[in-house]
Amino acid sequence: MIPDFSPSMFIGVMGGNIISFGSGQPDLPPPKEAFDALSGYRGFKYDLVQGSIRLREALSKKNKGFAPEDFVIGNGASESMDLLLRTLFYRCGRKGNVLLTRPYYYSYPHVVKFSGFGTVYTDLVGGRIDFEDFEEKVRKCKVAVINSPSNPTGMIEPRKTLKKIEKLTRDLGVYVISDDVYDEMVYAEDAYFMKGPNIITLNSFSKTYSMCGFRVGYSQTIDSELNKSMVEMKSHTSMNTSIIAQEMALAALNSPRKYITDCMKVWRGRRDAIYRRLTDMGLELKVPEGAFYVLPAIKHAKEFVWNMYEKHDLITYLGDWFGAPDHVRFSYPLDVEKIEEGMDRVEKFLKENPKYL
Amino acid sequence: MIPDFSPSMFIGVMGGNIISFGSGQPDLPPPKEAFDALSGYRGFKYDLVQGSIRLREALSKKNKGFAPEDFVIGNGASESMDLLLRTLFYRCGRKGNVLLTRPYYYSYPHVVKFSGFGTVYTDLVGGRIDFEDFEEKVRKCKVAVINSPSNPTGMIEPRKTLKKIEKLTRDLGVYVISDDVYDEMVYAEDAYFMKGPNIITLNSFSKTYSMCGFRVGYSQTIDSELNKSMVEMKSHTSMNTSIIAQEMALAALNSPRKYITDCMKVWRGRRDAIYRRLTDMGLELKVPEGAFYVLPAIKHAKEFVWNMYEKHDLITYLGDWFGAPDHVRFSYPLDVEKIEEGMDRVEKFLKENPKYL
Repeated sequence: MIPDFSPSMFIGVMGGNIISFGSGQPDLPPPKEAFDALSGYRGFKYDLVQGSIRLREALSKKNKGFAPEDFVIGNGASESMDLLLRTLFYRCGRKGNVLLTRPYYYSYPHVVKFSGFGTVYTDLVGGRIDFEDFEEKVRKCKVAVINSPSNPTGMIEPRKTLKKIEKLTRDLGVYVISDDVYDEMVYAEDAYFMKGPNIITLNSFSKTYSMCGFRVGYSQTIDSELNKSMVEMKSHTSMNTSIIAQEMALAALNSPRKYITDCMKVWRGRRDAIYRRLTDMGLELKVPEGAFYVLPAIKHAKEFVWNMYEKHDLITYLGDWFGAPDHVRFSYPLDVEKIEEGMDRVEKFLKENPKYL
Repeated sequence: MIPDFSPSMFIGVMGGNIISFGSGQPDLPPPKEAFDALSGYRGFKYDLVQGSIRLREALSKKNKGFAPEDFVIGNGASESMDLLLRTLFYRCGRKGNVLLTRPYYYSYPHVVKFSGFGTVYTDLVGGRIDFEDFEEKVRKCKVAVINSPSNPTGMIEPRKTLKKIEKLTRDLGVYVISDDVYDEMVYAEDAYFMKGPNIITLNSFSKTYSMCGFRVGYSQTIDSELNKSMVEMKSHTSMNTSIIAQEMALAALNSPRKYITDCMKVWRGRRDAIYRRLTDMGLELKVPEGAFYVLPAIKHAKEFVWNMYEKHDLITYLGDWFGAPDHVRFSYPLDVEKIEEGMDRVEKFLKENPKYL
């Protein structure tokens, strides 16, 4: 009997012989400048609820066309998403639906539900948005969420589709939450990120700068009334984001860009390794285009994930958690050596148990 | 014409000739141990959503009868309160009311509304809970909030009342959120803090250790199902509280208790100074028993607050924001010298404008 289990069972599980393709957090350390910022730090008071002015000024310099007041800093993109949905729910008269692409990042349906909105899904076809279906479904919605590069698919939406969605949603008056936390982790040649008066971009220091634990993310939109409402709500629900974490985020943002390009060389090698191994095993997989996830189809997925964990010390995440039955998510924030070792275990297991293929 | 204005207008306003009796944040620096913790810090990964095990172990040592798993660390008591109310709303079948004592901390009605609960008020009489009224009102509620020492009144509820409320709410199956963030800032001889299976205590490092900007607070209850639900929700709405802020909180908690007793000597001197000056001006005031607020009755309060700010560079908070019309809140996180200087301005103004008295 396989018990019910969820991602929270695996968070922080490590050590011994365990190889984890589970949690989606980078293993490479943050830029050293982030830690340098700690030396002599002596602040302790509340700061502006919307975030440190210096951090928002630096973000505005890196994002042409956006002023410091277009950003609201949050406790990771998670809080930004939650705050944004709650704020939009009030603005939409406390009713309406949010359109999610499926497979989705596993927290989306939860925060949508917590906000009060209902949920509508559009299924990805071959890892891409089916524009016709999107167009039909979005008409029933007040908000749509786009996540490209995607967790869990590792795919990127074509520029053409996103441009069409920009126009469609603007015409319909639908808000788009563009979750761009993987915007710097792109292997494909082209990645487009949505813009417009109805677009709210989410981003984070967690993935680009390996700063998951510090919890600094932000939302970005030229909708000044929305920003005002978010700040008003945040002044009651959490106040400013931790001042010292923001200080580290600022230092990371100002660190040489070489940090990001060096990291990307490492990630690309890992991407190539896991893609080659999984396809060699006979699993069907598109070339991952961004982020650090792959989502191959595996039969009896729950049994597979459970057995790999119980009997082979290897953590993977069940596709069902992401709205992808009969799939398994592998994240690969691991040295190539470890990836190869993990893949050896998977290969051996699949050879001995061909029913999963 | 006096414009509409709110506390957010005053947050972070300082410098020049301004004296602020506005924002409720300590000015004394945190224990030096909190900053020492930064030296050589190199963590960067996600930690447990419920908070660092070392911090929760330290809290459990300081709070007899509570295990590490009875604590959930949040981004300040603000997030803990928000998270708790949202979780309780689901547990109560997404309906019901929260009982607030009035005057109240100004965020309470907002987070109650955001959670989905309705609000019921019981008016304090002479700064104390009127048990008969409380008893009547609480029967219509699923949750009651107690805040003693109180922001904004600076008063403490008698042990006898709180004991009666413990029994009453337990019998009725009403949850009590006991917001004890000022539990270490007590001038009165006796202060009681509520306990029981239906009590959820909120606390924070912000006031006791002067760490407002870092945003570390926590909830504490032996209701393990409730803790589990809060952690589940937080895993989607914000993940772990900033790891580095928690590290500083742990260092503060482990610092010698002399830090707190030294601070309290300073606070007591300030309390005495502002109490003496305000009563000398003819304002009616009870001796403040805890926290660092006084809430004297002042006629035409909105005009008073606005004029003191516009014409005399002195910030005070309007009682209306706390559900206390015709009152003004003075917080006193200021050197006695500054308090005296501010009080000189108030005294002069009241002499010239006796209509406010």
